[in-house]
This record gives sequence, structure tokens and C-alpha cells, in this order.
Amino acid sequence: MKKFNVAVLGVTGAVGQEFLTILKQRKFPLARLKLLASGRSAGKKVSFDGAEYTIEEAGPASFQNIDLVLSSAGGSVSRELVPCAIKAGALVVDNTSAFRVDPEVPLVIPEINPEDIFKHKGVIANPNCSTIIMLVPLFPIHRLAHIRRIVAATYQSASGAGAKAMQELEKQTHEILAGRPPVKEVFPHQIAFNLFSHNSKVMEDGFCEEEVKMIRETKKIFHDDTLQVVPTTIRVPVFRAHSEALYVEVEKQVSLDQVRSVLDGAPGVRLVDDRQKNYFPMPIEASHGDDILVGRLRRDPANSKGWALFVSGDQLRKGAALNAVQIAEIWARKPS
Amino acid sequence: MKKFNVAVLGVTGAVGQEFLTILKQRKFPLARLKLLASGRSAGKKVSFDGAEYTIEEAGPASFQNIDLVLSSAGGSVSRELVPCAIKAGALVVDNTSAFRVDPEVPLVIPEINPEDIFKHKGVIANPNCSTIIMLVPLFPIHRLAHIRRIVAATYQSASGAGAKAMQELEKQTHEILAGRPPVKEVFPHQIAFNLFSHNSKVMEDGFCEEEVKMIRETKKIFHDDTLQVVPTTIRVPVFRAHSEALYVEVEKQVSLDQVRSVLDGAPGVRLVDDRQKNYFPMPIEASHGDDILVGRLRRDPANSKGWALFVSGDQLRKGAALNAVQIAEIWARKPS
Repeated sequence: MKKFNVAVLGVTGAVGQEFLTILKQRKFPLARLKLLASGRSAGKKVSFDGAEYTIEEAGPASFQNIDLVLSSAGGSVSRELVPCAIKAGALVVDNTSAFRVDPEVPLVIPEINPEDIFKHKGVIANPNCSTIIMLVPLFPIHRLAHIRRIVAATYQSASGAGAKAMQELEKQTHEILAGRPPVKEVFPHQIAFNLFSHNSKVMEDGFCEEEVKMIRETKKIFHDDTLQVVPTTIRVPVFRAHSEALYVEVEKQVSLDQVRSVLDGAPGVRLVDDRQKNYFPMPIEASHGDDILVGRLRRDPANSKGWALFVSGDQLRKGAALNAVQIAEIWARKPS
Repeated sequence: MKKFNVAVLGVTGAVGQEFLTILKQRKFPLARLKLLASGRSAGKKVSFDGAEYTIEEAGPASFQNIDLVLSSAGGSVSRELVPCAIKAGALVVDNTSAFRVDPEVPLVIPEINPEDIFKHKGVIANPNCSTIIMLVPLFPIHRLAHIRRIVAATYQSASGAGAKAMQELEKQTHEILAGRPPVKEVFPHQIAFNLFSHNSKVMEDGFCEEEVKMIRETKKIFHDDTLQVVPTTIRVPVFRAHSEALYVEVEKQVSLDQVRSVLDGAPGVRLVDDRQKNYFPMPIEASHGDDILVGRLRRDPANSKGWALFVSGDQLRKGAALNAVQIAEIWARKPS
């Protein structure tokens, strides 16, 4: 089996660390591993699979002899370095928003549009976490009944804002329980015992960047520009799994049994929908797992083509690093 | 000014305590105050406005010479004792679900249908907290543009399940931060750093009781049986304010300025909608306040008659005790 020289760009971040965990767990066919980060982290040691690696400062010349770059160092770093990596002959799976809406760049969720992987011109974009966690469980419903419209409300964990945001949730919680005022460093508002509208820029039409990502990326991944998405994105005091309350309108009238049956066993999905026990998806149960949990399946009593559901998925794994590594795995079986 | 003999039924609960706070803050015209609770709490002392009161055990004979009962001791207690209070000549403002859908019983939010107060036959029902917090900010939009349909996702605080649930959130948070497994006593699932579908019974159609309340009560309060509500109710690790992501479809095409202007200054509502500063409603800012905060106002880009918004309101105050006292105040100006 072919093995690959892999660089992890942004290895000190929450997603960067998760890349390492997942490469090891899934036994990705590694020849050589190169760990890249900003100058601040250069020289630090990281252990991986029994060996010690030294973090190198990422720069235009970092990608010699690299086959695959897993990148999650932020949009501006990607815009600068991804072209260098492509020039050096590597495939980049990029977890930033830098290339997601570029029509030349495939945007891929392997359960949905794996065929797009092979249209790449050096870079494949990994979708936004909220998009992935929404679309993996919606895709089986889309194939069954053709979704026309999605109204989404998110319950997003601190991890989406990085490792420091997760620490801030813990720190602020300590402070509040001790009766001290919580210190805000990462988030603009208190996250402990609170929630707030997603901390991304709000555009002229009132939607924030996170919501715009969900709207645009859904159309691109489903290859359907007419599909409507109306999201409201909210941060909640949860560490590492996003949840979403979804309402979808479909074209074709189907039964609850049909919806349940396409979800049950669908790739990347686990049905958690026990009405009797009041047992449904929860972020603590989605955390550290690979599947998106889906439940609270209900037909809209006023619209036979309307369906409500609730989902939870690990933001760092399927919402980011796992999805990227799954893309790389498909590519690795047949690298172009 | 006429003064009233008032009994607070369920005074040891979170809402019962809030009744006392609000009666004092709003200088309700009290002649005599009687504090009622279960046998377990009988004999306990409570101070109110500089005087000490002894809690009495609530029973059928508790309501002699009482003009007004503020009741929040649970549905089964209300079903047993409210008829006795009515027989004794009192008006009961009841915060349980016992009488809310009874067609003979007014269900009132003073900002919306105060006229229904005077149709009472001894009992006026206080709506469910999620219903109140949703409808106070939606009513000005309804009057402007006629709402036909609401898709709601809630972010409900621990307080909705009572004082012990709030303590459980604090206790579990301590336990998790200390690396101990969280003990579950009130909620069926871990509430600290987690969220879960509302812990009320799930009905045959998949909607839980909390959601059914929002659906039925909205129709009754708006006097419109054709109004459609599709809620998903979720508990979040927040102490005492509920938030809700709302999507509404209206009949009449209106502008954002019109929506903003009917909300700005509407009774019981405070507009918190600063896009530049990313400053919108948050439960910590709604807590201990009287207003429902409303913001994130956006027109659906795909439907000119669709609107998205986000609201937060104190669950114990406007969601429960304050709304009940406001009903009593209107009644007290003209007791029947």
C-alpha cells in the first residue's frame, strides 16, 4: 500500500491536535509526518505514535516532498501557504473558509459528494463544522424526499472558536462559581452559564458569517442552488459538540417510518430517538465520537411535508478533522 | 385604594419566591399576606417587607377571606385546591398547566389579551414560560403583519424545572470541574456543559408536552386556531432565562424598519439588535429584568414574508411570576 508524506499545518490548534489523534486512530498510511505551526510554536516537541516530533515554522518552503497537507491554521495562513503547497505538488485538504466558495475548489463531505474529491486542482475544502453536522443527517432525507428548505437553529460549542475558547469556558465557570467576575479574553461575551449569537461578523442583511457559510456551503455540497437555508447560529456553554434544531420542508410526501429507516444505519449517522425514555441526541454523547446523532424526528402537524429533528455531532472530529482525514483517505486510495 | 388579602400557594418554590419579590417591588396593594406550601414546609419562617411570616400547610380551608391567590404549586395541587379557593370567593391566578387549555378559563399575557382577564370565572391561567417569552415580542409583529406560522427552537434554563434544578446545574458543574462524575437527581440527563431535549413526556406524534403547550397556548392567546407553531424545546446549562430562535412567516409584506419600529418601545419588549457590535439578546442580560430582549432581526433572503429573530427573557419573572402579578394588577384595578 502506498504511504504518504503528510504535513499538518496549524498543529497546535484544537483541530490540529485532533488531526494527529485521528491519523493515528484510523492508521492513515503515513510515510513521513511534518508538523507545522507559527513561529511561536516552532521548536516545541510533540509525541505521536511513540515517536517525538519537533514543530517547524510554517513557510512557503515547508512543502517540499509533501504529498498531503492537512491544514487548519486560519484563513489568512491558508491563503498565503496553500498556493505554495500546491506548487510543491501536494494535495491540501483545507479546513479554513479560504477556498470553500471558490467554484474551482471541491467542498466535500465524503458521505454526500465523494465524487467531487477527484475534481480537485490541488486543494479540497473541508466545510464549516455547522454545515457538516447539519448535512450528514439531512442527506439521507434529501435523497428520500428532496429537501427544498431548511430552518436551522444551532447550539454551538466553545471548541469551534479553538482550544483557548474551551479553556475560557472552563475558566469563566470556575470564576462564576467562586463569585468572581468572569474574565473575557477569547469571546466577546460571557460564555459560562450564558449563550450568545455567534461571534462572527454580521453582514448587511443581518446574517452573520457563520450563517452565510451554512447557506452557501449547503447549496454547493448538495449541488442545488435553489435549496433555501435560514440559520440562526448561537454559542452555548458546551465544550466540543455542536447541536442543531432543524426544520426541513421536502418535495415528496413520505412517512415517519421511511425517514427513520433511511437514517438508521446511514453512513456517519446514529439514530438516537427513544421517545419513551426521552432519550435523544446530546452533545456529551456526541463528543469524541464519529457519528452525528439524530433524533426528535417529528412530522409538522400543520404541513405533511415538514419535518423537525435535532442533531448533535463532535465539532472537532466530524465537524473538522475527521471529515478532512476521510477526504484524504478516499484520495489516498487513488491519488491523482 | 382598595387593598387585597393575597395568598401565595407554593411559596417555597422558585416561582413562589419570585412572587414575593415582585409583590414587593411593584408595591402590590396588600392588606394581608398568607404563605401556603406543602406540609413539609409548614411552620417555616419567611421574611417579607420587614415582617416575618409563617408558612401554613395548604388545604381546602386555606382560602377563607382571601381575595387573590397566586398559585404555583404544580398541576395536581392546583386541580385539587383551585376549586376550593374559587368557592371561598377568591380569584386565582394559576401558574400551572392545570387550566390553561380549559375553554372556560382565560389564558392571559397582559401585553396581548388583557381584555380576557374580565371573562374569568374564578381562575385565570398564566401561560407556560416558553409561550410567554415567545409571544410578547412576536405580538407587535403579529399586529403589523399577521403571523401565520412560527418555527421555534428554545434554549431553556434550569429554573423552568424549579429551584432544585438550578442547584443541580451548579452542583454538577462543580463536580465536573473537579473531575468527579455528575450526580443526576432532578434532570434525567447531565445538565452541566450539556443540553438535552426538554424533560417532559413525549406524546405519540413525537412532540413533548412543553412543545404541545407552546402550540396550543399560542392559538388561544392570539385567538387564532389557524396559527401554526412547530417548536423544538431544549434545556441548556443556563440558570434563569430562556432564549428562543424564532422564524415566522407573515401574511403582509413589511420592511425591516417597520418590524424594528413596532418592536422598539413595545410594552414588555427591549430591542437589543446592534449588528456592528455583535450585541444581541443574552440570557445573562435578560435575567432579573422585566423585559423580553429581542434582536437578530433578519428577513429571510428566500422569502420576503419570512423573518428570523432571537429572544431572551427571565423565566421566573416574565415567564412566570411577573406575568401573573401583572394579570392580578389589572384585575385589582377593577376586581369583579
